[in-house]
Amino acid sequence: ADPLILGGHKFTSRFILGSGRYDLNLIKATIENAGTQIVTMALRRCRTTENNLLDYIPKGITMLPNTSGARNAEEAVRIARLAREVCETDFVKVEIEHETKYLLPDNAETIRATEMLAKEGFVVMPYMFPDPIAARQLEEAGAACVMPLGSLIGSNKGLRMRDFIEVIIANAHVPVIIDAGIGRPSQAAEAMEMGADAVMAYTAIASAGNIPVMARAFKHAIEAGREAYLAGLGTVTEGHAVPSSPTNAADYLSPSK
Amino acid sequence: ADPLILGGHKFTSRFILGSGRYDLNLIKATIENAGTQIVTMALRRCRTTENNLLDYIPKGITMLPNTSGARNAEEAVRIARLAREVCETDFVKVEIEHETKYLLPDNAETIRATEMLAKEGFVVMPYMFPDPIAARQLEEAGAACVMPLGSLIGSNKGLRMRDFIEVIIANAHVPVIIDAGIGRPSQAAEAMEMGADAVMAYTAIASAGNIPVMARAFKHAIEAGREAYLAGLGTVTEGHAVPSSPTNAADYLSPSK
Amino acid sequence: ADPLILGGHKFTSRFILGSGRYDLNLIKATIENAGTQIVTMALRRCRTTENNLLDYIPKGITMLPNTSGARNAEEAVRIARLAREVCETDFVKVEIEHETKYLLPDNAETIRATEMLAKEGFVVMPYMFPDPIAARQLEEAGAACVMPLGSLIGSNKGLRMRDFIEVIIANAHVPVIIDAGIGRPSQAAEAMEMGADAVMAYTAIASAGNIPVMARAFKHAIEAGREAYLAGLGTVTEGHAVPSSPTNAADYLSPSK
Amino acid sequence: ADPLILGGHKFTSRFILGSGRYDLNLIKATIENAGTQIVTMALRRCRTTENNLLDYIPKGITMLPNTSGARNAEEAVRIARLAREVCETDFVKVEIEHETKYLLPDNAETIRATEMLAKEGFVVMPYMFPDPIAARQLEEAGAACVMPLGSLIGSNKGLRMRDFIEVIIANAHVPVIIDAGIGRPSQAAEAMEMGADAVMAYTAIASAGNIPVMARAFKHAIEAGREAYLAGLGTVTEGHAVPSSPTNAADYLSPSK
Repeated sequence: ADPLILGGHKFTSRFILGSGRYDLNLIKATIENAGTQIVTMALRRCRTTENNLLDYIPKGITMLPNTSGARNAEEAVRIARLAREVCETDFVKVEIEHETKYLLPDNAETIRATEMLAKEGFVVMPYMFPDPIAARQLEEAGAACVMPLGSLIGSNKGLRMRDFIEVIIANAHVPVIIDAGIGRPSQAAEAMEMGADAVMAYTAIASAGNIPVMARAFKHAIEAGREAYLAGLGTVTEGHAVPSSPTNAADYLSPSK
Repeated sequence: ADPLILGGHKFTSRFILGSGRYDLNLIKATIENAGTQIVTMALRRCRTTENNLLDYIPKGITMLPNTSGARNAEEAVRIARLAREVCETDFVKVEIEHETKYLLPDNAETIRATEMLAKEGFVVMPYMFPDPIAARQLEEAGAACVMPLGSLIGSNKGLRMRDFIEVIIANAHVPVIIDAGIGRPSQAAEAMEMGADAVMAYTAIASAGNIPVMARAFKHAIEAGREAYLAGLGTVTEGHAVPSSPTNAADYLSPSK
Repeated sequence: ADPLILGGHKFTSRFILGSGRYDLNLIKATIENAGTQIVTMALRRCRTTENNLLDYIPKGITMLPNTSGARNAEEAVRIARLAREVCETDFVKVEIEHETKYLLPDNAETIRATEMLAKEGFVVMPYMFPDPIAARQLEEAGAACVMPLGSLIGSNKGLRMRDFIEVIIANAHVPVIIDAGIGRPSQAAEAMEMGADAVMAYTAIASAGNIPVMARAFKHAIEAGREAYLAGLGTVTEGHAVPSSPTNAADYLSPSK
Repeated sequence: ADPLILGGHKFTSRFILGSGRYDLNLIKATIENAGTQIVTMALRRCRTTENNLLDYIPKGITMLPNTSGARNAEEAVRIARLAREVCETDFVKVEIEHETKYLLPDNAETIRATEMLAKEGFVVMPYMFPDPIAARQLEEAGAACVMPLGSLIGSNKGLRMRDFIEVIIANAHVPVIIDAGIGRPSQAAEAMEMGADAVMAYTAIASAGNIPVMARAFKHAIEAGREAYLAGLGTVTEGHAVPSSPTNAADYLSPSK
């Protein structure tokens, strides 16, 4: 009824789960609690002979290999092609980062890689710095969505880029998926209330005390935020209260000085 | 498994719904979507002969009459006694306000009223300005919970009193229920993540485009926030990213100036 | 031309300096850099026989003894009377706190003490929790100003109580002086821009790397905030830019989805 | 003693003033109150035969022509060359924008233009979207500084890009000048406290009730922020107060639940 559409594929869940470094035994419970239909992973995690991550992921989940480790467009394209073979999917999350302190995406290289990969038939989902000019260029390059960061990867700091993510959402013709920094369910709900189409999270869940319960919390929060967006938020009132029922008390706070 | 306990009564829902001025025909759907077990109302709304609000509320819901209109402790006590008769309940939400611009609670009078009503066997749920000293005094006066405002009633501004609500929560021996100003599901989730025991909302829902859908959004958000609180939130990292998978890229951002 | 008036006395500086626990040798330089005309101190600091704080304060400065250590109105009144003798001043800052973790003022006791001291001719400057109802009652009790906290004493967290300090300022007939938690010059400027009449600071300066330079920074910031308030702030624009000069470029960001 | 150095030139003021659309008669008073040594202007404003802006600017002020209206690197270079002739200066502020709703800088084109202009000997001051990757590339292209926006031009919304401006400052080898969105003196002070090297403002001043007084407010705020940065800010304390003087009161707020 309200599907998320990526590259022509329909999804009912709007929560994309990162796989990173969980205990493999937790992955199944976490995915089920999250209600997620898409799971990202670094290509290298799919290829180890022992403890293959893919064996722990329930059937029917869409794999979203990412290109982490790529430092430019060419490296990202090479990793994407390999991932297509190993994971048997056209989906790819483009991540191009030069350094390890901030893990910031290189927008210019990401636009180049997106263009190349889209021509090869990939469903390209690019991680990006939330510069609205770059978001438009990613769209023009054939991206199936844009994935702006909310704050630094793994920081749990939430929507620090709020103002410009709002500009991206207001002008996008593809889904906008918030991809990094979301640290609490309330922040995921806030992103969805603003009109984001989906949220991806990993550290917030992996760093929780109880991982499967936090996955369920995110599921509920993302549903809440989407429902609120569809319902239409009420307006904010500044400088005075709005009574819920009439009062007949006298006004005693005297006029402003 | 994780009940909210008020005056010895157990509730599974942590969402208290204000009734205010909805279209009466929406009330049933809203309560059901909210999953709420407690509904507040001004006493006067229960007493009109036509369109009696009580007729529209599903069976099994706990009525929480409030004392709005009271300007001091004595008036609040009189209204509470009347409400006990009309609504056939010991629950009462104490609201004492002098003026209509800000509708701010008078903490000193509220403490006095709480003491009187607790002695008469009421389950006293006081609306309060989030002053931690007053919260402690309400507890000592016999309050079943404290209900600090997040921001001005009906403002939809959210948790503007965050810092001192945190102090109240850290020191309370009774449930802390956020009572005014919560304007979005994400804000309700945030309150619950902080450790609030429940959230009450009215304007956020009544001012939404689709009232029953917004009620469901709040239900999900409050569940999400509670789950996150129970799961244990991860820590926030300042000043650098936290990789989800190892990277081998060279560090190019040179040392700080 | 734009004096701060407290109890009939005119001041040109709007920066009140706490004295606390500086190295005594720094006090003179700090006061001079701050350009302050009022310095607070705990009564007990005036009374020690060795290293008497008063000897280090330049002539012409108004002493503002505080009642810290008082746990109720009666203790505050006793300390105030003693301070009047020792410091030879009618000014008193009422501070009534019960506990040492949060050092929160007890508004109810502070109102009582203010009423007693005002009747005895003191210029009463009460430290308060920023509850607008209490602010009005302090005025009615004869306070020469109200001194709401911005955040916890010594926390350097700034104006966390912004929303309700705005309500206090909008309704006050006496000066509003922000008294605790201001941690940076920018926060002092913000308080003044909002219409606060003065700012008191201590920890922000005492915890700075260079105390006299930070005192000068606060002086400039408070002047800046006052000038901005008097000049009249421009309005904030949401959702689009406001060009400073006409442009003839084509609009390429296509209409909102 | 603490100069701002741009292209080998030393400045004592850290406040760059936009000229935009003031009443020409106010310009002199505004510049004097601001204490500014650099004034930006659109090239087109220098070239009109009547009411030539240059005639209204005091001697000794460095003119900083900007390339507003340029939609790509080549247009920016053409405008810069023209400006060098008309304004007789090597300074140029590169602004490349495609659209008029958000007036967002195109980082990729700005990097290209910077490289071309730096080779021609210009002191290149690029307006940029605060993407730290782009900031580094601007440095490598020969920029004399970087000028990230705080929020949308003319919005008066302040430092909405705070987190990533901090990353830029932590890694820059050239001055970082906050260029758009600063709407209040407190926000200018905050930028300087964070370690920005200078602030440019126009709308905040042009939209004030009293333009010359607001210019002076900004001057003081920028000085305050710089002094605070040099003095070294104190640390922020979470969760409890920090007493300024010892208290002997008993602790009554009982242990956390």
